[in-house]
Amino acid sequence: MNALVLESLGQLVLKTIELGPLPEGYARLRMLTAALNHRDEWIVQGQYAKIQYGVVLGADGCGIVVEINAADRRLLGQRVVINPNQNWGADHRVQGNSYTILGMPTHGTFAEYLDVPLDRLYPVPAHLSDEEAAAFPLAGLTAYRALFVQGQFHQSNTVLVTGIGGGVALFGLQYAKASGACAIAVTSGAQWKLERAQQLGATVGVLYTGDAWEQELRRRLGGGFDLCLDGICGEPFNRLIAAANPAARIIVYGATLGVVPKLDVHRIFWKQLHIIGSTMGSDADFEAMLRFIAEHRISPVVDAVFPLERYQDAFERMRKREQFGKIVLRIAE
Amino acid sequence: MNALVLESLGQLVLKTIELGPLPEGYARLRMLTAALNHRDEWIVQGQYAKIQYGVVLGADGCGIVVEINAADRRLLGQRVVINPNQNWGADHRVQGNSYTILGMPTHGTFAEYLDVPLDRLYPVPAHLSDEEAAAFPLAGLTAYRALFVQGQFHQSNTVLVTGIGGGVALFGLQYAKASGACAIAVTSGAQWKLERAQQLGATVGVLYTGDAWEQELRRRLGGGFDLCLDGICGEPFNRLIAAANPAARIIVYGATLGVVPKLDVHRIFWKQLHIIGSTMGSDADFEAMLRFIAEHRISPVVDAVFPLERYQDAFERMRKREQFGKIVLRIAE
Repeated sequence: MNALVLESLGQLVLKTIELGPLPEGYARLRMLTAALNHRDEWIVQGQYAKIQYGVVLGADGCGIVVEINAADRRLLGQRVVINPNQNWGADHRVQGNSYTILGMPTHGTFAEYLDVPLDRLYPVPAHLSDEEAAAFPLAGLTAYRALFVQGQFHQSNTVLVTGIGGGVALFGLQYAKASGACAIAVTSGAQWKLERAQQLGATVGVLYTGDAWEQELRRRLGGGFDLCLDGICGEPFNRLIAAANPAARIIVYGATLGVVPKLDVHRIFWKQLHIIGSTMGSDADFEAMLRFIAEHRISPVVDAVFPLERYQDAFERMRKREQFGKIVLRIAE
Repeated sequence: MNALVLESLGQLVLKTIELGPLPEGYARLRMLTAALNHRDEWIVQGQYAKIQYGVVLGADGCGIVVEINAADRRLLGQRVVINPNQNWGADHRVQGNSYTILGMPTHGTFAEYLDVPLDRLYPVPAHLSDEEAAAFPLAGLTAYRALFVQGQFHQSNTVLVTGIGGGVALFGLQYAKASGACAIAVTSGAQWKLERAQQLGATVGVLYTGDAWEQELRRRLGGGFDLCLDGICGEPFNRLIAAANPAARIIVYGATLGVVPKLDVHRIFWKQLHIIGSTMGSDADFEAMLRFIAEHRISPVVDAVFPLERYQDAFERMRKREQFGKIVLRIAE
């Protein structure tokens, strides 16, 4: 079969590899679609723990179950999505030491076939296309845990989602909107992304390229935020702290701008802020997210769809941060 | 009466001032003892919001009620401590905009007499001396909220208290010990403070002056901490993050070393850490703390007692950070 294999540092190649026998307790999927995550790019660039070469990348995907090596055969022939968690462990608060994510070190979704443990598979919510189905597992799970579990979202909260256009940020916006948040602010470096976000339900959009954007944010919101999802960190983080309402929660799920220089700790304790790290989510979070997506008919935002062979164009688009929503690979019809 | 008055920037002087008529709803205390806090020094140095000159400093104190201008006269003649909170507000999560602390901008405890609202007064727990009674309100309240309210202490937690010897840190250690914490680690820059802390129940003491002290801490604890009270911040903060167990809570109540350079956000989200700011505590926290101190017969650690006239020696001792416990002024017998 054809698959996108990490051959060596920086070398992601489309090549033919052999499928082994299907292990017991596993299902074999014929993959229809897969979605890119920044994680895939970090792995290619060597910026990830315990990288192994010869592995098929890809954490997100949608496929048809074509074979099952287990007694329970109910999913045979079904269109399924894959829970990308592996071995979260028993502690709902945090993943255990042996936790991994699909697509490193085990083979992932960027391939014509994928063998995964049967218990990782869920029928796709009926309202989703193949592309939308591939688009939600990793980013949708991260946003779900950040907003609802770590963030303890409440309808009365003014919500801020930074860096709108990224996968997690968009799910955060969509979930907050579907949950009845009265005020949702977003930030971006691009005016057109703010406008797209407002079509999705954002009530205030602020460019973070301007000086003192946190003051504009507070002025337009008529106050600060109660709950923020941030995947940026870096220099803007102290402006978040300045824009926060007392007792606000800032959920940090990533750091595209890296470490925070000179963290303003005085405001953290005087305002009694909660800064909470979050990554991915437990299996229980994944199931709760699936129910939420089905119940609220959340349609993930798909930015672009590339055929598998054009994976380099897809990665290039993600590297340039031009996207608004998820970038999807079409593997088969 | 004699009182320590902030005359101008840097000028704290012992002088005679007039007592006005006692307002309605107020009680007049003849002060017995008062305790110093770093806050008092920051105010003297101009490092505090909304400083007014001509104000008597002091947030902590113990006195005898000598006059009451209210119908409820039950506390007349009683030995009382003062809840230093003023106008916390209705939100238990955080103080409101009109919140202040006794001793700026209203007159504080460094005086022979003090007029305060009657509802700020509580009988001193019987097991406490006058000096111990003055020593606990501000630091004891801060530690109580940090450990139990924001920190959600549980007996199974491994607790770390940084900068042992400071008032809040010592209460944190004593409360955790009294609550049955199985493992309590402390850090300090002085070996003798670690030894004193071990006499108070600390199970591990580590000098933070050494290289890689966070590794020594983990080695001696046989793992990381689940809950940390930190009033230091600064460069060591990233070492705290490194020493934290997954899902740990770090409660920040101060920043004697100032801002954190280059906050290590990646570990925060990967470990799903909670960094929570805390300051003082609500009136409900104050009452819960009083019950806790009485029930567990907590005796605050008093470092030294100076007569009021020697206030400059007392402040000098605090500035040099030589103390282990609270520095108390004796005002009257």
